[in-house]
Amino acid sequence: MIADVYIELKEGVADPEGEATLKALRLLGFKRVKKVSTVKVFRIDIEARSREEAEREIAEMCEKLLANPVIQKYSIVWRE
Amino acid sequence: MIADVYIELKEGVADPEGEATLKALRLLGFKRVKKVSTVKVFRIDIEARSREEAEREIAEMCEKLLANPVIQKYSIVWRE
Repeated sequence: MIADVYIELKEGVADPEGEATLKALRLLGFKRVKKVSTVKVFRIDIEARSREEAEREIAEMCEKLLANPVIQKYSIVWRE
Repeated sequence: MIADVYIELKEGVADPEGEATLKALRLLGFKRVKKVSTVKVFRIDIEARSREEAEREIAEMCEKLLANPVIQKYSIVWRE
């Protein structure tokens, strides 16, 4: 089964990559862009007996490796 | 209006970040992970009269800045 794991910054945390992208877009003439933020997605193909079991395992992956819990939050969206 | 712009690698293009993440997860004991791929998402807040107009503009942003058309493809998902 395949899950998309979204890693995004928590509210209030600065997103320098998003800000730099916004500046670059405006310099290129895209004046109507108001805000850009960045999100990282890990598409994970995992073998498990159930989604619940896989979600527990993915939560552990996020806590141990994929996300920095101080500044990031994660969410899981199943693709198949 | 807010769009999520997904930038992913085209079929057949190597994803070293995904491969390194897979290796690290396996080293940590997550043996049931079969594959990891990475996707970049730009969440763009844009002012436009219609979604069609905004999508044309976002397509131009992808071609000029956000994506590398040689190795990446993009897709747009509206959030609001």
